[in-house]
Amino acid sequence: MLERINTPNDIKKYSVAELEALSKEIRSFLIEQISKTGGHLASNLGVVELTIALHYVFDSPTDKIIWDVGHQSYVHKILTGRRDLFDGLRKFGGLSGFPKRNESVHDIFETGHSSTSISAALGIAKARDLNNEKYSVISVIGDGALTGGMAFEALNDAGRSKTNLIVILNHNEMSISKNVGSLSLYLSKLRTDPNYFKLKRDLENILNLIPPIGKSIHKSIEKIKDSIKQLFVPGMFFEEMGFTYLGPIDGHDLDSLIDVLKRAKKMEGPIFIHVITKKGKGYVFAEENPDKFHSAVPFNINTGEFKKKNYDTYSDVFGKTLTDLATKNDKIVAITAAMPDGTGLNYFAEKFPNRFYDVGIAEQHAATFAAGMAINGYKPYFAVYSTFLQRAFDQVIHDICIQNLPVVLAIDRAGLVGEDGETHQGVFDVSFLRMIPNMTIMAPKDANEFVEMIKLSSMMQGPCAIRYPKGNAGDYDSKRKVSFKLGKAEVIREGSNVAIFALGRMVNIAIDAIDKLQKNSVNPYLVNLRFVKPLDIETILGISKKVDYIFTVEDNVIVGGVGSAILELLSDNKIYKKFYRFGFPDKFIEHGDVDSLFKKYRLDSDSLAEKIIELVIS
Amino acid sequence: MLERINTPNDIKKYSVAELEALSKEIRSFLIEQISKTGGHLASNLGVVELTIALHYVFDSPTDKIIWDVGHQSYVHKILTGRRDLFDGLRKFGGLSGFPKRNESVHDIFETGHSSTSISAALGIAKARDLNNEKYSVISVIGDGALTGGMAFEALNDAGRSKTNLIVILNHNEMSISKNVGSLSLYLSKLRTDPNYFKLKRDLENILNLIPPIGKSIHKSIEKIKDSIKQLFVPGMFFEEMGFTYLGPIDGHDLDSLIDVLKRAKKMEGPIFIHVITKKGKGYVFAEENPDKFHSAVPFNINTGEFKKKNYDTYSDVFGKTLTDLATKNDKIVAITAAMPDGTGLNYFAEKFPNRFYDVGIAEQHAATFAAGMAINGYKPYFAVYSTFLQRAFDQVIHDICIQNLPVVLAIDRAGLVGEDGETHQGVFDVSFLRMIPNMTIMAPKDANEFVEMIKLSSMMQGPCAIRYPKGNAGDYDSKRKVSFKLGKAEVIREGSNVAIFALGRMVNIAIDAIDKLQKNSVNPYLVNLRFVKPLDIETILGISKKVDYIFTVEDNVIVGGVGSAILELLSDNKIYKKFYRFGFPDKFIEHGDVDSLFKKYRLDSDSLAEKIIELVIS
Repeated sequence: MLERINTPNDIKKYSVAELEALSKEIRSFLIEQISKTGGHLASNLGVVELTIALHYVFDSPTDKIIWDVGHQSYVHKILTGRRDLFDGLRKFGGLSGFPKRNESVHDIFETGHSSTSISAALGIAKARDLNNEKYSVISVIGDGALTGGMAFEALNDAGRSKTNLIVILNHNEMSISKNVGSLSLYLSKLRTDPNYFKLKRDLENILNLIPPIGKSIHKSIEKIKDSIKQLFVPGMFFEEMGFTYLGPIDGHDLDSLIDVLKRAKKMEGPIFIHVITKKGKGYVFAEENPDKFHSAVPFNINTGEFKKKNYDTYSDVFGKTLTDLATKNDKIVAITAAMPDGTGLNYFAEKFPNRFYDVGIAEQHAATFAAGMAINGYKPYFAVYSTFLQRAFDQVIHDICIQNLPVVLAIDRAGLVGEDGETHQGVFDVSFLRMIPNMTIMAPKDANEFVEMIKLSSMMQGPCAIRYPKGNAGDYDSKRKVSFKLGKAEVIREGSNVAIFALGRMVNIAIDAIDKLQKNSVNPYLVNLRFVKPLDIETILGISKKVDYIFTVEDNVIVGGVGSAILELLSDNKIYKKFYRFGFPDKFIEHGDVDSLFKKYRLDSDSLAEKIIELVIS
Repeated sequence: MLERINTPNDIKKYSVAELEALSKEIRSFLIEQISKTGGHLASNLGVVELTIALHYVFDSPTDKIIWDVGHQSYVHKILTGRRDLFDGLRKFGGLSGFPKRNESVHDIFETGHSSTSISAALGIAKARDLNNEKYSVISVIGDGALTGGMAFEALNDAGRSKTNLIVILNHNEMSISKNVGSLSLYLSKLRTDPNYFKLKRDLENILNLIPPIGKSIHKSIEKIKDSIKQLFVPGMFFEEMGFTYLGPIDGHDLDSLIDVLKRAKKMEGPIFIHVITKKGKGYVFAEENPDKFHSAVPFNINTGEFKKKNYDTYSDVFGKTLTDLATKNDKIVAITAAMPDGTGLNYFAEKFPNRFYDVGIAEQHAATFAAGMAINGYKPYFAVYSTFLQRAFDQVIHDICIQNLPVVLAIDRAGLVGEDGETHQGVFDVSFLRMIPNMTIMAPKDANEFVEMIKLSSMMQGPCAIRYPKGNAGDYDSKRKVSFKLGKAEVIREGSNVAIFALGRMVNIAIDAIDKLQKNSVNPYLVNLRFVKPLDIETILGISKKVDYIFTVEDNVIVGGVGSAILELLSDNKIYKKFYRFGFPDKFIEHGDVDSLFKKYRLDSDSLAEKIIELVIS
């Protein structure tokens, strides 16, 4: 059946029974494909019926469906003519794992970060109204994403308007990990407490039984009956926000889904549909371990087993090191915005549950919460992906740095993240943190150095950021002693007329370029910067004075990055040398494996060597 | 009485009648003082009794009071020993208009931007709990600030915890302008609908009258009674968020306030107290025009009249020009995050109410909402203060720029804002916007140029930002024709061995420096950059090649600013000249009048000339 579906129209002729069969086919397809390519399995298995029902009831792209976060858009992609591209899913040059407007007219608004879809949908709906057009605009948002503040800002704005807008809550109790917070408890209550729903009916029945003793009581009863409807609606929270609440609906029952969507399509004003789904639905291993199968690497379908990684990631090193330090320093606390596993804080959470805070998808709150703990004598580590730290930019400036508080930003996934693409690359943090007064910024070249940086950060009296990449941190060598001091760079290699200043993961790429450079008679100094701020002025100026050519290498955009910082420093000190900045160009970096991307942007060691040789020899 | 109060303890001996008298004295003091110095009058008049009651019931600084936004902390400052400093309020070197830790131990956490206080309070409370200490932590937040997403993130986190925390909602229906949104409607309902509160009592009475007909009905009635309490609580919204709701309380009745605060002090878990206040209370002109008296310039106490400004601000020019353009272009829409007046969009709102969107204090939502409208064919102008744009940093990158959407960021209050100090200076936007791919950035030197930039922006196919300062835009000269093109700078003056590249408001400061420079035999080129991005490569390189010294002048931090952009450009083109960047240093800029600050940071024309002469002549 699946092979005959190339546009959403192709499913409209089917019966519900046939759509159910289609659901099965899609699940098999997803499991089969993602077991080979990797990708977001669990979230997509959870929305198979919901996606089918949406495309069955609505007419995309006239009706606009916006997928919050967007990693659950695979089924949507399958139904909108992209089934055959799944072999290239998330690969360099292949199908994106997120909605992309250049892929399909059915991808209305690009997503990646959470909690944006209601704002986008409201904007689209208001534009529709100005045009006097009629169609549905639908936001599909998870209960995790709903805890992000901007989703609330959008509900608050949408709810008071009379705009026709449908918000579908895909309620699976998970973001990547288990959801937290009051809203989550409230939604669970709606989901699980039958009394909550029956109360209204019970009460009405009882009131009907009251004998009409006297006119005033009779009148009161009538008044109360009128009010009950309003007060006993399940989803009162959303009703109070101005939405008509429908639900909860079984998100794997196509009949119910189609029925509620058809009703919503005809209703006026903002509608909130509460759909209960199971993340990982239909694949037992994913149902049991939805977080493991959130963003999966290739796996064995029959056993649900991933190829085990036999190395520590930077996240692992972070989590383990911080846990060690916290054993001796009881002021250390750890904060995550819904990423306990991804950030490696699971180690910490296990050992120090009382000093671990998962605040939900709420980076803004996390940063200012950290500031609050710091002002009261604690040493908070806020572990966060580089790209998501952008959400807390104002709070880092306004709450942490103005007050010069000793919060540590442990910035994971700095630089390229690869497969997740434009929305997730961590290539801006050097630029946007460097401009903030009071900030110290470090980047380690390997596990040993990382451990030293974490130790140093625990002693810092002001704000401090450590940025480190996704993936393998290499071996930690407990015998190797790292000489490490605040604000000091490491001179890896003395040379003659060329200097290379490299940051973090780029140091080893630069080291790998040395051979080729030497073979071409280029004999560079190589400096591992370690600190973006403060720069090691003495070392940088000292070496810069001795050379004719200076190269900086970073996995950040070159606009305002560490290369610019060094350029500023040299200019301020009246040192004018031939200068070239390696880094990402002034464009958004697409998805693909990290190696291909480094090659494309000429940041692999061969390209580095070639460019340096070209500039120096010519 | 007021003169005998130097610490909060001094009010604890008073009777409620005496405290009421004190309230009167404080109001007179506030009106008298602020009529002379200017400052945030209306919000402080609104919290006189609340602040007195807080310091009467709680023991600051052991108990921690955190003022959201913080401009309503004047009464707190008066009661904590800073009464005599009010002559210097918001002046250079004088008392800050916001809580500042270096002013008093009673200022627990510094604020300025809205919606941070619950996060901070929760952090402080969690640290207290880890220390096994006992004291109260109180956040005082307005209903405007409560619409900011991070306040919701914090409520969501705090509500599910068992942490003792008191959130006081200062409900006055205003942020700076009238509040909007569902939450605002909901709070009004709580405030105004007596049925909402009486229903519970009525229902319980009625249920008591039901004759016990049969056991099962009797049982049902009992069950219902149990549930009623939970369901009929006013402030259900906050109860659903996990808070115990108390209120609403008359915020000008000291008896009620003291009573509720005493109760809250003894209660466990997160408490939400709903206090109704009147912004401007006790001064008739401020009660009638609370927005006008939000941040007041000096005024006549007897008439409530401000000295009328006889000039147009940049905000005025923006609002009027956009309104003109929108007459011809029906795709233009305007968006504000609760700042219709401050941004000059009041002109637009009046003429095009259907194309004007005030989304509340919700910069994140505003940016993505704009992206949604843009994707559906509209041309949104999001007018926002530079410092508040920091809140939408991620949304500008992720929702506007990745999709390359034609949203215009009209960035008001760029550069120095003066009196509001560290938290409000707009000195980072050049650095944090310049690094974003697809972004065009302009800054006008005067009203005429600003009008041209707004016109150009309306034709741009991608994201675009115009940054302009607070205050007088000078005269718009309709006869003067500005030759203006995308990406082209204006060469104001040809010279010989020195080039000055100046941005926006700094152009006129640089012009004023020319005389002095010439008298000292320095004959500079002077270029009005107009564009930060794209830079006018041809003009900049052409002139740079001809000179020995290059100076850049901007009212942004020099880290990563337009000076760095030019340095990058020159380096990329192998032009190495003596280079000096004028701008703000790598520190937070304190409050004070703009002129004093420019002098202090040596960005006035005299300092500019002196520094240039020093560098060129020496």
